Amino acid sequence: MSGRHQPVVGILGGGQLARMLALAAAPLGVNCLAVDGSADACAGQVAPLVVADWSDRAALEAFAHQVDVVTFDFENVPADTAHWLAERVAVHPAPEALAVAQDRLAEKTLFRACGLPTTEFMAVDTREQLDQALAAIGAPAILKTRRLGYDGKGQFRLATAGDADAAWAALGAQAATLGLILEAFVPFERELSIIAVRGRDGEFRTWPLTGNWHVDGVLSMSLAPAPSLGPLQQRASEHARALAERLGYVGVFALELFVKDGELLGNEMAPRVHNSGHWTIEGAHASQFENHVRAVLGLPLGDTGVRGTAAMFNWIGELPDATPVLCGVDAHWHDYGKQARPGRKVGHATVCAPDASTLATRLRNIAQALGREAQVEPVLRALADV
Amino acid sequence: MSGRHQPVVGILGGGQLARMLALAAAPLGVNCLAVDGSADACAGQVAPLVVADWSDRAALEAFAHQVDVVTFDFENVPADTAHWLAERVAVHPAPEALAVAQDRLAEKTLFRACGLPTTEFMAVDTREQLDQALAAIGAPAILKTRRLGYDGKGQFRLATAGDADAAWAALGAQAATLGLILEAFVPFERELSIIAVRGRDGEFRTWPLTGNWHVDGVLSMSLAPAPSLGPLQQRASEHARALAERLGYVGVFALELFVKDGELLGNEMAPRVHNSGHWTIEGAHASQFENHVRAVLGLPLGDTGVRGTAAMFNWIGELPDATPVLCGVDAHWHDYGKQARPGRKVGHATVCAPDASTLATRLRNIAQALGREAQVEPVLRALADV
Ligand SMILES: Nc1ncnc2c1ncn2[C@@H]1O[C@H](COP(=O)(O)OP(=O)(O)OP(=O)(O)O)[C@@H](O)[C@H]1O
Ligand SMILES: Nc1ncnc2c1ncn2[C@@H]1O[C@H](COP(=O)(O)OP(=O)(O)OP(=O)(O)O)[C@@H](O)[C@H]1O
Repeated sequence: MSGRHQPVVGILGGGQLARMLALAAAPLGVNCLAVDGSADACAGQVAPLVVADWSDRAALEAFAHQVDVVTFDFENVPADTAHWLAERVAVHPAPEALAVAQDRLAEKTLFRACGLPTTEFMAVDTREQLDQALAAIGAPAILKTRRLGYDGKGQFRLATAGDADAAWAALGAQAATLGLILEAFVPFERELSIIAVRGRDGEFRTWPLTGNWHVDGVLSMSLAPAPSLGPLQQRASEHARALAERLGYVGVFALELFVKDGELLGNEMAPRVHNSGHWTIEGAHASQFENHVRAVLGLPLGDTGVRGTAAMFNWIGELPDATPVLCGVDAHWHDYGKQARPGRKVGHATVCAPDASTLATRLRNIAQALGREAQVEPVLRALADV
Repeated sequence: MSGRHQPVVGILGGGQLARMLALAAAPLGVNCLAVDGSADACAGQVAPLVVADWSDRAALEAFAHQVDVVTFDFENVPADTAHWLAERVAVHPAPEALAVAQDRLAEKTLFRACGLPTTEFMAVDTREQLDQALAAIGAPAILKTRRLGYDGKGQFRLATAGDADAAWAALGAQAATLGLILEAFVPFERELSIIAVRGRDGEFRTWPLTGNWHVDGVLSMSLAPAPSLGPLQQRASEHARALAERLGYVGVFALELFVKDGELLGNEMAPRVHNSGHWTIEGAHASQFENHVRAVLGLPLGDTGVRGTAAMFNWIGELPDATPVLCGVDAHWHDYGKQARPGRKVGHATVCAPDASTLATRLRNIAQALGREAQVEPVLRALADV
């Protein structure tokens, strides 16, 4: 076949984010090619998959030749891999932006430089510096690895300065390799995230702020638009834009925020499509996945307007019975095609409704049928306050 | 890997319908496997593809062993192929239902038996019978092949009985192989279709009636819900249900209808997801593709409620510039990943809106930007009448 050229987006990582990127790319006439170390990476069910390690330069070389642009479903791609690829093919977001988002210290420093307040923080390289940081910041506090943390892993909570030994026992061995950071614990009123996208030409859009609830450090439920925001939506968008412009960022990212005393504090930035934006598949006119594909290819950005209100259940470890969601009104099941495993993100469900009270009813029905009243309870409380 | 079992839907045919079925199946945790004679069948970009001919029984045997259920993206699968497969694996819709829908004579006979009126029609096997049929039915009329017609192919329009020779010259050679039927021309006020789905357990649902406009026998635009229906929605649903129950039908089908003197006439039944139902991807809570997958696997049917109003542009032959759709509000681009070729369906775009006048504005803007005012004009007229 002489064949038209269909753009190919290369994705480092073949998990559920790559899978949902590929599903969103297809209607645009865009194909994806994922690289993952595991032959059963779930993106491989919907797109071709190269089974290779990041360190396999021959495989990455061949991969780079097959794609028009490279992006990530996984933020902890080694910086040297990203740089090496960027010498061969367009990489979005750029390795420099990725590097900042990979390091909690660089990230929080950038937030402050861009006018987004954060909780107090200090780098910790030695046991002695931990004491100094605790003296400066106070307790309660959280000791975290600077790099490679996700889903609350690589964190230790200190209720008092007396927990310093335990914290060091848990994480001290990683000070030399990953670096550590001590953060003042934030007694936040709520957690929000804003999903934003910036195009190659600098065009910038956000979806409405999302309210998030975590269990054991892992996202459990999201609600969008987050209710009762007042001026926070506008401010969050401005913060996201400032960060994106400073980084020359291209693609979708999530900015995770705490609300304390009614003000926003920056927690972290995820340089990729994000779990708290999964509701955009059905809840918005263009999803985070579609807009990420558009952005990295230099296509015009899609409409981030919403259809009403939406909530997401995250399925962690294993899928519950699908029936209550399959039978729900405007309810949408997402099975990532992964094996069940404790703590693993294996799917989600999004429930949409025209208004808060209808959404609450739909969520309550599904949660009751599943025996998951506790999971949905904070969302119902937030909806009742509307 | 020990591996959970993910259901696999086998699809005979690997065109855009198979492609959109596979994209809708993935979030349900369902994989698809398509069979097509062509290695570049566009479903192969999003699902594994077996390249084989219907007559290749060894390939079909292997295929049958890899899937949980077989369905079709192509209604003209030979009856013997469908029967042969049905001896090996569940096939939905069943070969018997497919056989009726493949034959315009059997189909219209069934419509009448189920209480759905049709235009006058008569089977035509010889040149002599054509004269007899014309004498009985009158002109204008349309001579059609009974089988293998699609997109207005295999049809000849007779303005007067004097066109009989020309009609026979065009189609007479196919009388022995495909059979012919003469139908009285219907001076219809409008063309509608209803997309319906019936589950394995007999559960039955419809989406709202869709208004359709054809150019040269090929669908050009759809509008849903079709405006100003009065009691027709209810009646169309009842007709669709009666047909589905009579046939023991499982899966999605389209019933194409004419409106004449304010009453419904049955034109034909497409035993598969249908071009006039593509708007359901964004315009309804569950799309025709998702519900077809659910139905053939015996899962509960999804919510066929709509989000507002939607219109579809069909892209025939080649894709226009994507930009006006990519930049449109609640506008959705669908590129099937096919090569351009005259008359070929290569993509579509769906535009959604909360109400008729907003939809009209959005459609007008896109059509103007594309220089396609003529394509959209009948839809704007229908929307203006709301
Ligand atoms: N300084 C803090 N004060 C209070 N709570 C915090 C603080 N830092 C983190 N948390 C809580 O722990 C959760 C996970 O922390 P964080 O986002 O830093 O880690 P992560 O492992 O990168 O998480 P994710 O993968 O969800 O982005 C936060 O969403 C928040 O609920
Ligand atoms: N009896 C008729 N009277 C008037 N118009 C007709 C008649 N039959 C067909 N048409 C017109 O031709 C179009 C295509 O005809 P029909 O649906 O029978 O053929 P097809 O090739 O099976 O089409 P499709 O692939 O769109 O289902 C119809 O949608 C209608 O516009």
